[in-house]
Amino acid sequence: MSVTAAQGFRAAGVAAGIKQSGARDLALVVNDGPDHHAAAVFTSNRVEAAPVTWSRQAATDGRIDAVVLNSGGANACTGAQGFQDTHATAEAVATVLDLSAGDVAVCSTGLIGELLPMEALLSGVTSAADALGPEGGSDAAEAIMTTDTVSKQSVVRRDGWTVGGMAKGAGMLAPALATMLVVVTTDAVVDPGELDGVLRAATAVTFDRIDSDGCQSTNDTVLLLASGASGVRADRDGLTTAVTQVCAELARALIADAEGAKHDIAIEVRTAADEGDALEVARSIARNNLFKCAVFGNDPNWGRVLSAVGTTSAVFEPSQLDVAINGVEVCRAGGVGEDRSRVDLTGREVRVTVDLHAGDAAVTVWTNDLTHDYVHENSAYSS
Amino acid sequence: MSVTAAQGFRAAGVAAGIKQSGARDLALVVNDGPDHHAAAVFTSNRVEAAPVTWSRQAATDGRIDAVVLNSGGANACTGAQGFQDTHATAEAVATVLDLSAGDVAVCSTGLIGELLPMEALLSGVTSAADALGPEGGSDAAEAIMTTDTVSKQSVVRRDGWTVGGMAKGAGMLAPALATMLVVVTTDAVVDPGELDGVLRAATAVTFDRIDSDGCQSTNDTVLLLASGASGVRADRDGLTTAVTQVCAELARALIADAEGAKHDIAIEVRTAADEGDALEVARSIARNNLFKCAVFGNDPNWGRVLSAVGTTSAVFEPSQLDVAINGVEVCRAGGVGEDRSRVDLTGREVRVTVDLHAGDAAVTVWTNDLTHDYVHENSAYSS
Repeated sequence: MSVTAAQGFRAAGVAAGIKQSGARDLALVVNDGPDHHAAAVFTSNRVEAAPVTWSRQAATDGRIDAVVLNSGGANACTGAQGFQDTHATAEAVATVLDLSAGDVAVCSTGLIGELLPMEALLSGVTSAADALGPEGGSDAAEAIMTTDTVSKQSVVRRDGWTVGGMAKGAGMLAPALATMLVVVTTDAVVDPGELDGVLRAATAVTFDRIDSDGCQSTNDTVLLLASGASGVRADRDGLTTAVTQVCAELARALIADAEGAKHDIAIEVRTAADEGDALEVARSIARNNLFKCAVFGNDPNWGRVLSAVGTTSAVFEPSQLDVAINGVEVCRAGGVGEDRSRVDLTGREVRVTVDLHAGDAAVTVWTNDLTHDYVHENSAYSS
Repeated sequence: MSVTAAQGFRAAGVAAGIKQSGARDLALVVNDGPDHHAAAVFTSNRVEAAPVTWSRQAATDGRIDAVVLNSGGANACTGAQGFQDTHATAEAVATVLDLSAGDVAVCSTGLIGELLPMEALLSGVTSAADALGPEGGSDAAEAIMTTDTVSKQSVVRRDGWTVGGMAKGAGMLAPALATMLVVVTTDAVVDPGELDGVLRAATAVTFDRIDSDGCQSTNDTVLLLASGASGVRADRDGLTTAVTQVCAELARALIADAEGAKHDIAIEVRTAADEGDALEVARSIARNNLFKCAVFGNDPNWGRVLSAVGTTSAVFEPSQLDVAINGVEVCRAGGVGEDRSRVDLTGREVRVTVDLHAGDAAVTVWTNDLTHDYVHENSAYSS
């Protein structure tokens, strides 16, 4: 159900012929109101795809009536023609649904540097509009998949209102750049001025804390749409908690389906001076290829963790660092701790805990191991 | 010949039994003077190995009489005992050669987090001292190899004086952290106050511009020793040029022997606002796993180059970026340029050229592709 679990939303996912495989490749999500509040966050990559440029502008006034999403092409680095194609896509949706194009968000995912097959795409918009329905969430979630092996959906129900969402992408591990796309919907009655803060609070501790391979996309887009159709008002804290839960489940699903990954790795940095330090240290470990290869080999090579910590500007003394891997404290006070042979890395989930002994802040960042299959999938994609 | 090509130096490389393979694993380089000037640069990793802490202090007064180097163990994250072992190593060299321990630099390379077998190592110091000779450079270069497949040596001869050097490491690609070690010697008569500037100028454009996998070592050390034994004075510019040439050859050899690599990639960033911008952009591309996988697959996936550029803070307009791969301008003005199928990536060497159109600065950074063999070697090392 995902994006159609909340009242006031219809969705569809169809095969428009953008993907050569013939799989579903075009999704439409429509907010039938009565409210049309929206908030959005986008990639911070300065080389942003045409649909990001378009949707950023469309979301500025806090209103989005419909979202059209395609897989099979990122429409990034496609110049003026690429932007015209995005514009034409929004216009087509507006025409068929009797909306204003400025209230239509556009999302694309796939290979960078190629124009979209617009004839197929525009014809798909019509088919998708015909197929729109309150049960269309699953088809829409399927239509935005690229190398995802499963569709990602999540629903949280509260007393009288619901939050649902769908996502595509394999962290940043997906081919030709992840292009993580997420649409979250709710039928709660909300203060439109609060929606942006709710979404930013949720993404800051979920999508911003997964990092499969350190490669930032040109297309990342996360949209939160509120229809108010339940007629039940949600307070800000309650809505933030529910949206965060949906985003966390979707983020965890992205890591679990990351290309080629054999391990999901939670890196918990504790006793940091502040949250910024904790994040810097966690991300440095999450991006260390040598450590990620070691985990693939079921090797608790904690020296690679310490060397990654050492490259940061966080507050710590090297002689006070503790590192535990799956509960075994292999590094104590910057030196050899418990016997590394006691660490069991055969399971899918790995937990690395680093204590900086510099304060009370803590964060957890999720990443994946670096595997043969990651190299294989990402060396043979566009050719 | 390498470190013994210049007059006034003796060296040796012996098998001390530190490596289980029985290969050479302990090297000694001695400066017999008359001068004993030295300069050194070290890793900026805050988690630094005991020998780095020791050698940094030893080099402070600008005098080094001897360098002892071992492979088979990094002596990093080994606490107080690790530092005592480094101290004992320097004392042993000082005793057998009748020097002051404070004038002996120590370098170690290998796995992090394990103590060195000191009995074997100290016995090896005696054997190496016995084997010292003016032809020992090649043995010394061999003794510092870890997963290197060839020893790295370089000699530049000038009118009356010589610069020679040896290096180990596979960029930062080596297992359990690269631990790149380099010793460069010269018999030129030099102003000791100039030596530090000469070395920093040389390393800034050579070793600082290779980046195999973005992983910074705990043990990196580059030493420049001057004996004055030629009796011929070198001016600062001439010496800088010669030392830079030796460092550049050694740096190139490190990239050429990087673990598992199938391509050596020169990333040239041009028309940047300043050198800092050019370096930031080049390093961002050099550390992009998706791009590195694409090169392994002979896939000229320029979208991954642009997405890496977009994560930097350099001065540029996305719509003005040009990218050429092996001479084919696949991206023009931020969009599609020449047909990517024209790019031939079957050779070992790949040249990526990025124009920012923001100024006159240019740099070249060397990296490698990300391959199955890299993952294999680094997932199966310490276990």
